[in-house]
Amino acid sequence: MTMYDTTAPAAPVVPTRGRLRPLGLGEVTITDGFWARRQRVNGEATLEHIESRLESEGWLGNFDLAASGKLPAGRRGREFADSEIYKYLEAVAWEIGRRDADASSPLEQRFRAIVARVAAAQEPDGYLNTNFGRPGQRERWSDLEWGHELYCLGHLFQAAVARVRTRPDADDGLIEIARRAAELVCREFGIGGREGICGHAEVEVGLAELGRALGERRFVEQAALFVERHGRGSLRDIEWGRKYYQDDTPVRDADALRGHAVRANYLSAGASDVAVETDDDALLSSLRRQWDRTVERRTYITGGQGSHHQDEAFGDDWELPADRAYSETCAGIGSIMFSWRLLLATGEAAYADLIERTLFNVVATSPAPDGKAFYYANTLHQRVPGIPADPSATSSRASSSLRAPWFEVSCCPPNVARTFASLDAYVATADDDGVQLHQYATGRVRTVLPDGRVVAFDVQTDYPADGRVRITIAQDAEFTLTMRIPTWADGARLVVGGAGEDAAPGTASVRRAFRAGDVIELALPVAPRVTAPDPRVDAVRGCVVVERGPEVLALESVDLGADVGDAVLAGEPVERDGSVVLPVRNRSTDSVSEVPLVAYHDWAQRGPSTMRVWVPTS
Amino acid sequence: MTMYDTTAPAAPVVPTRGRLRPLGLGEVTITDGFWARRQRVNGEATLEHIESRLESEGWLGNFDLAASGKLPAGRRGREFADSEIYKYLEAVAWEIGRRDADASSPLEQRFRAIVARVAAAQEPDGYLNTNFGRPGQRERWSDLEWGHELYCLGHLFQAAVARVRTRPDADDGLIEIARRAAELVCREFGIGGREGICGHAEVEVGLAELGRALGERRFVEQAALFVERHGRGSLRDIEWGRKYYQDDTPVRDADALRGHAVRANYLSAGASDVAVETDDDALLSSLRRQWDRTVERRTYITGGQGSHHQDEAFGDDWELPADRAYSETCAGIGSIMFSWRLLLATGEAAYADLIERTLFNVVATSPAPDGKAFYYANTLHQRVPGIPADPSATSSRASSSLRAPWFEVSCCPPNVARTFASLDAYVATADDDGVQLHQYATGRVRTVLPDGRVVAFDVQTDYPADGRVRITIAQDAEFTLTMRIPTWADGARLVVGGAGEDAAPGTASVRRAFRAGDVIELALPVAPRVTAPDPRVDAVRGCVVVERGPEVLALESVDLGADVGDAVLAGEPVERDGSVVLPVRNRSTDSVSEVPLVAYHDWAQRGPSTMRVWVPTS
Repeated sequence: MTMYDTTAPAAPVVPTRGRLRPLGLGEVTITDGFWARRQRVNGEATLEHIESRLESEGWLGNFDLAASGKLPAGRRGREFADSEIYKYLEAVAWEIGRRDADASSPLEQRFRAIVARVAAAQEPDGYLNTNFGRPGQRERWSDLEWGHELYCLGHLFQAAVARVRTRPDADDGLIEIARRAAELVCREFGIGGREGICGHAEVEVGLAELGRALGERRFVEQAALFVERHGRGSLRDIEWGRKYYQDDTPVRDADALRGHAVRANYLSAGASDVAVETDDDALLSSLRRQWDRTVERRTYITGGQGSHHQDEAFGDDWELPADRAYSETCAGIGSIMFSWRLLLATGEAAYADLIERTLFNVVATSPAPDGKAFYYANTLHQRVPGIPADPSATSSRASSSLRAPWFEVSCCPPNVARTFASLDAYVATADDDGVQLHQYATGRVRTVLPDGRVVAFDVQTDYPADGRVRITIAQDAEFTLTMRIPTWADGARLVVGGAGEDAAPGTASVRRAFRAGDVIELALPVAPRVTAPDPRVDAVRGCVVVERGPEVLALESVDLGADVGDAVLAGEPVERDGSVVLPVRNRSTDSVSEVPLVAYHDWAQRGPSTMRVWVPTS
Repeated sequence: MTMYDTTAPAAPVVPTRGRLRPLGLGEVTITDGFWARRQRVNGEATLEHIESRLESEGWLGNFDLAASGKLPAGRRGREFADSEIYKYLEAVAWEIGRRDADASSPLEQRFRAIVARVAAAQEPDGYLNTNFGRPGQRERWSDLEWGHELYCLGHLFQAAVARVRTRPDADDGLIEIARRAAELVCREFGIGGREGICGHAEVEVGLAELGRALGERRFVEQAALFVERHGRGSLRDIEWGRKYYQDDTPVRDADALRGHAVRANYLSAGASDVAVETDDDALLSSLRRQWDRTVERRTYITGGQGSHHQDEAFGDDWELPADRAYSETCAGIGSIMFSWRLLLATGEAAYADLIERTLFNVVATSPAPDGKAFYYANTLHQRVPGIPADPSATSSRASSSLRAPWFEVSCCPPNVARTFASLDAYVATADDDGVQLHQYATGRVRTVLPDGRVVAFDVQTDYPADGRVRITIAQDAEFTLTMRIPTWADGARLVVGGAGEDAAPGTASVRRAFRAGDVIELALPVAPRVTAPDPRVDAVRGCVVVERGPEVLALESVDLGADVGDAVLAGEPVERDGSVVLPVRNRSTDSVSEVPLVAYHDWAQRGPSTMRVWVPTS
């Protein structure tokens, strides 16, 4: 049994340097509220739903066929199907850590059973993929453009990282499976080996973190090699150009994220890790500039990214059609991965702002309340009511269906699951003198600063329904508590020890010798507000969106009693009886009525409807 | 040598009933002006350019390989490559007719040389396709969804129709090749045979016209069978649904064109032929309703159709993004095919209006002035300057390139070529009492009415640069001359024999005993006008477009001296020194200047630029 550094936080990203240190599961525990409800559904329903589909679709069975030498006959699913198993394993590993499930728990047993099936499929030299390399299959690494072999391994590595960080002493074997595969990747693609990259970035971020988790510097260096090789044109040119897989321009020379939105974000996340681990400030600066431009010009009000259906890609600057928003759930998760790494590196609140926007309006939008159906794409304007998805079928990615239980390309459900299972680790960070609260949720924070001070406090809030956040110190200690004040929260107030003060957007810090029982009250103004688009966004000119706190609101036909195409703004939104109502004129009847808005993440939960986020003003 | 009805007009569509009878090549001759210039370039440059690429890409060579039994090894091009040869043959056949080229002319020799190569590849039973049916190839008709076998034959049939109608006594063999292939289709897919349809409509319109041209009723009946079989779900469901190939809803039950825009228009054209030939007024009424809704809600200001890149498809009602307009050139041509059939059936001017809009703003936009490069997709808003296409390469369909010489999917160039070569046949029609002028171009009209009256007049105009059209009677005769007054032509004036009168949009008719030398003067007001979008089109809310006569105008960065994203309307367009100038405020500098607009069909002819058709008003 190998032992790893058990002092590292139980978190997906643990850089060796940077402005902030992440707090992992156990240090932060979300106990109630908006995200706790979603985490509960994720743990109780989504994980089982995913495993059952991985089994019934035969994607898990591919590993058994590989082990018994029966492939390629009978292999099922797309070329990247293996990765869904790894993302699921990652989700379960975090869930085990989050619940602190013991070795005899059903969750742990399910995890081990799948790891055993994966292990049996690994080749003696460490290679692991059910789609390549056997008689009757294509050769290993023969289709770097579309084969997704390295992509799948990247997800394997992230699953192993989750295991190292939550159960470093487990004897299930996942960590060694990943190590052997990573060693193979280094042999095959290291200096002097194949000078290729994968058509879908992911191995970079996986290798870098596995290297951090296992203390294997060469994995980080291999990640750096892959990052540097992008933009050299080693991948074949295709209809959408090499920018589709970010092989058009070297990462450090690019000025914005471009091409396939998931690929672009995964690569940027991996490049951020590499920049941090190699002290490459030029690369980090470039990534920050790219983030700035991408958020300013290529990101929906929801935080969603990707406006092309065809290539699941970013459009040009300002090309943000509401009705053809692709805004893939996985691109939102990739964006959070990228932003989180920049936040750890720099400490700047803007990254946490985007994470919050994306969590509430992309990631939370995807799953149905029962956790068993998902949006793959997240349009901002639905003109034709969706149709219920066939529960027994695999749906199209951006079909006209409502949330669907499973997709032929089913990357999003396990991606949501691993994000929810590890969400505690995105709430707060620490530095040498205190703790930074980036997201607001009821729960506990308990950590020890490098000099031994114990920081312990509880958070109580109904956020985002209510903007008040009450922080109660649980143990005497002198430290700095820093709270993010979202950009939208003009007029935020902070009350410490009875004394109130204004808190401007950015961060607000309180440093003192806290006593157990001290209370810090933050009041974020979540009254509905009207937001106009940048005039350079052509698609929503003459429209506004109503937001409330971190939530984007939507107008649904079921509330309007008419098609949302007939709706015109007729006044200011007001809060009434716990919901936001908007005066809306019906263009067809010319009548005005007050229509309740729903949080965008809750749309289409009452059956088929038309919906719009941007409402015309005239 | 077989002889066919040489009294039929030399036109692509000659229905046996209907409100209007088409006038063919020879009856109408465009001699000068806007379209004559394009026809000249088409005949002198485009045809040779296409043939040279068909040869160098190996698509013509596929027929030679088939004849020598060498297929499938070495076959080149996509599954539908054969169709490009047939469209090219159709273009050349019309060009021969248009020029009245004799049997020794180079054009005729080139035509015959290719027909001979096609003939050698036809199987003894009439089957003709270079991609199916040989050892090592897939079986005939085994992939109706994507195989395009019937699609290719549809284009063969249209080429044969062009030959029948222009050189009915030619002994090159094309007509018999088509007849034998059509007979095979009837045997294979007739009643009692395979109950399939082709995934890409075209065989319907081809069979119906070949049946008309050869007097073979069974070909028309087979076309009717194919039309009726659509919407029964015989094709496999796919990611975009069966509506992609119009197999979701029976043709007569649909309420709008939907799915792939070229497929939808080709099918509608074929269904129109079937409706006319089978006296199926219910079907014809349904098609007219579908046309109405499609033009109202799913058609760009340019006449372009199809707002999805991904599936080259119509979007939902009002989903007309300017920046993601796909507006495939071929969809515009398909729309003209559909509209022309409804015009012949009903005589209603609205159909000719759309044909004009589409000719000037889609078809004329595609080719470069030299006739050797083309737009495949026709965006209405270019945010990033295009890059010059590699002249030696095959470009992507909707790439970021400027007009490109050739595409991997190269349907558009030969489609433009056959349209220009047969354009004379879309100018005018006749009924029992006279002639209807639908499009305005300098040229001659000479025809004989059923009762023997000779109608002969000349048209002189600089349309669309100048809205004045001068019609001079060339021979004494009493008849009705009907002229289309475009919807936009409010204030049109008609002067006959010195007496002027207003002519309201729709049609204006003059009936009298004309004497040779009589002059009818039509004055269409082509002053620039500002058009606001339907408020239900979300993508261009708060914008207007400037039009002039039938031409949509565009704002290009090369004229603005800045990115068109910075442009805001600052006044009314005015005509000055032969060009339209628009007062435009630069949002970045806040300065106002008068900027010349270009006809949309002329954009990107001065190198890379950004461009927009819809200009924000604030």
